[in-house]
Amino acid sequence: MLKFAILLFLSLPCPPDPCCFALLWWQNAGGWVRSVRSQKEVLFLHINDGSSLENLQVVADPSLEKRDLTFGSAVEVQGKLVKSPHKMQNMELQAETIHVVGPCDIWSFPLKMKERHPLEYVRQFPHLRCRNNTLGSLLRIRSEATAGIHSFFQDNGYVHIHTPIITSNDCEGAGELFQIETSSEAKESAEKTHFFNVPAFLTVSGQLHLEVMAGAFTHVFTFGPTFRAENSQSRRHLAEFYMVEAELSFTESLQDIMQVMEDLFKTVTSTVLSKCPRDVELFHKYIAPAQKVILFSSSCRISYSEAVEILKQAPQTFVFKPEWGCDLQTEHEKYLVKHCGEVPVFVVNYPYDLKPFYMRDNEDGPQHTVAAVDLLVPGVGELCGGSLREERLPFLESRLRRLGLIDAYQWYLDLRKFGSVPHGGFGMGFERYLQYILGVDNIKDVIPFPRFSHSCLL
Amino acid sequence: MLKFAILLFLSLPCPPDPCCFALLWWQNAGGWVRSVRSQKEVLFLHINDGSSLENLQVVADPSLEKRDLTFGSAVEVQGKLVKSPHKMQNMELQAETIHVVGPCDIWSFPLKMKERHPLEYVRQFPHLRCRNNTLGSLLRIRSEATAGIHSFFQDNGYVHIHTPIITSNDCEGAGELFQIETSSEAKESAEKTHFFNVPAFLTVSGQLHLEVMAGAFTHVFTFGPTFRAENSQSRRHLAEFYMVEAELSFTESLQDIMQVMEDLFKTVTSTVLSKCPRDVELFHKYIAPAQKVILFSSSCRISYSEAVEILKQAPQTFVFKPEWGCDLQTEHEKYLVKHCGEVPVFVVNYPYDLKPFYMRDNEDGPQHTVAAVDLLVPGVGELCGGSLREERLPFLESRLRRLGLIDAYQWYLDLRKFGSVPHGGFGMGFERYLQYILGVDNIKDVIPFPRFSHSCLL
Repeated sequence: MLKFAILLFLSLPCPPDPCCFALLWWQNAGGWVRSVRSQKEVLFLHINDGSSLENLQVVADPSLEKRDLTFGSAVEVQGKLVKSPHKMQNMELQAETIHVVGPCDIWSFPLKMKERHPLEYVRQFPHLRCRNNTLGSLLRIRSEATAGIHSFFQDNGYVHIHTPIITSNDCEGAGELFQIETSSEAKESAEKTHFFNVPAFLTVSGQLHLEVMAGAFTHVFTFGPTFRAENSQSRRHLAEFYMVEAELSFTESLQDIMQVMEDLFKTVTSTVLSKCPRDVELFHKYIAPAQKVILFSSSCRISYSEAVEILKQAPQTFVFKPEWGCDLQTEHEKYLVKHCGEVPVFVVNYPYDLKPFYMRDNEDGPQHTVAAVDLLVPGVGELCGGSLREERLPFLESRLRRLGLIDAYQWYLDLRKFGSVPHGGFGMGFERYLQYILGVDNIKDVIPFPRFSHSCLL
Repeated sequence: MLKFAILLFLSLPCPPDPCCFALLWWQNAGGWVRSVRSQKEVLFLHINDGSSLENLQVVADPSLEKRDLTFGSAVEVQGKLVKSPHKMQNMELQAETIHVVGPCDIWSFPLKMKERHPLEYVRQFPHLRCRNNTLGSLLRIRSEATAGIHSFFQDNGYVHIHTPIITSNDCEGAGELFQIETSSEAKESAEKTHFFNVPAFLTVSGQLHLEVMAGAFTHVFTFGPTFRAENSQSRRHLAEFYMVEAELSFTESLQDIMQVMEDLFKTVTSTVLSKCPRDVELFHKYIAPAQKVILFSSSCRISYSEAVEILKQAPQTFVFKPEWGCDLQTEHEKYLVKHCGEVPVFVVNYPYDLKPFYMRDNEDGPQHTVAAVDLLVPGVGELCGGSLREERLPFLESRLRRLGLIDAYQWYLDLRKFGSVPHGGFGMGFERYLQYILGVDNIKDVIPFPRFSHSCLL
């Protein structure tokens, strides 16, 4: 491993310890060539191994230049690691040998040296775009954010649960689902027998399964893929996306849920900022120059009813007229965020008839609401959605009966028959989180392999 | 949060700091009742909140007993936390008030007080089995192992990649796949249009997608669900299971890959043993009394050819006759592990014709092999599988052409045209790992919601 640890060193904020340094004095470095600059007396290479945005500068005798030493080629360089005379880097490698392990046909390679390709352009090459600086940075940030999410929950005593991907539940009854068959079933059509005996779907949320666990653990979370078969080409939707979901037992207040959302956001964002500052800087410099990371230093909390009033009094006209009882549309969310000063906005207590059966009845009137909360953020809209869950058996039974779902959810009612506790939770869209902190307009650019209608490349 | 932190304290190896302790002196504790013992002068409760296997002992005046204070009910107890006179526990709670927040109908509740239910029994109740001690311990261990896997790779400079769940690739061409359709497509049968325009499947491995990333990062890993539509009722197979996969660039030796497998195993197992010793102990005491965790203190390495020779000379007869060129069967794996002294066994260099197209040609003869490695472990069989990947364009092209796959894998060939590097990687079945360290016979008992043929509960 030592052999390729060199670039990690370059990303250190201060020069390495002299003892370590001695070990690294005579070095092999492997990576991909980002630039070649041949001068009369010296050959400069920049190579990168993906461990950071920074390249390692290699200085060599021009005699070491070869025909296949081009942009995009993979090289192994052996030489001496020395303090660099340049201000921009700590160290450079004085090459003794340069070995091209994998050449690159630059004429057919879609990425070009030192060119800042637009995100739309590199999106066409899902198998090569990770070699682009911007996507490289994105993937490092995504990786750190993932680790940060696991640490946050781990440090706060949550038990991680792998909620199932394949489920016989149609969780919310809303939206199109993906159905699963074995490939041989898919070919034969009439009179299907199902592999699982029952129709099976890809999960739209791990919530109900987390609620199972919330009957034995007071804090649980899951972080995995979820699916929607929506035929949308929106810049905020994917058919396959990642969701962080948490469930807390023994809580009777939406405020507890909002606090966890906020803490999660702050902790993960601090981790990302401290672990890959240069990668984040790239986004804020070239992709979203207006973007600033708002570390939730201020936020705003309004009720759904207040939100509707604000919208009704807005000087602008909306395509969808704001009306109590109707869902907030993207244009409404945008206006509310602007109205509150471009800060994160918690909207609480939504109409009872608008929300799924599991949300807790506020028993209020005349406008009947449930204890739900959505978190809206600038540029992205809904980032998190959560609620207290209806833990009271009679309330849940009568609601499920009215919806004709009582038979399908006997197991869910069981959770309320045996040691039910007040509880609640939320989900955060991981890609939307990345869009928000980095200022990335299109959700397809914050996931390694985007899946959406009409597209499933590789 | 403080309110429910109390049980965390009980799981601390040493008594808490006096300052913290003072804070916790007057306490609310919420949890589920594990036992009720009413004596003439005192009422004993054991409550558990899932943070550890240990219960909190609550001591109360018998006047606080109520009819619905039963096994399985959820309670909130307010009282004084004091040092316990009993040796078995650090502290106990002297209750002032006991509030039953959620009663439990013990007559219809399938779990019974102080009964050690067999795993097969609790498996029938996927929505309630987490309230059983054994499953509670399993889920805590699974959670710690998950965190340990993320930390191991994070600490070793790996970039985490979310490889896609839905894919248009049929990675290995082997085994039955699950195919995906929107639920409306599934209903209409003839003349299908696909949501993604192409047939789409659930992934069987993230390897090819990790290889994409191994062209920009020298170390990458993924940890997520994978799927097989095998109609098997084996105790080692699931339709949905979790796999850890890693890919390393700039490596030319299988030894590097094996070293990472071993380091991963050792690090994660140490984490689990130090984070939840009591939970592991439960398994080794009641589930698999003969089980000892072998921390890879010794292992064995043989070639496939040697393995076949060992099998041929075995004094026992096999259902499948061992023959060079044939796959190793479960009975063969078992014998090899026994032959090597019940330690982990690496088997390397498998027949070329037995393995998928991407494995690296050893260019040997007369018995033509590829640089593949399987790790076999006692009781479980194959735990990990890996290989060096064929990074040489001409080798890969001719193999794909012979297999008639050349058109489908143009993108994969591209990875070898543009800066190809020697690389390799492996996958480890997460459930099999848990089976191995805990001595759990059936794979259905180490995953929260098992999916297999004829079964997809919840």
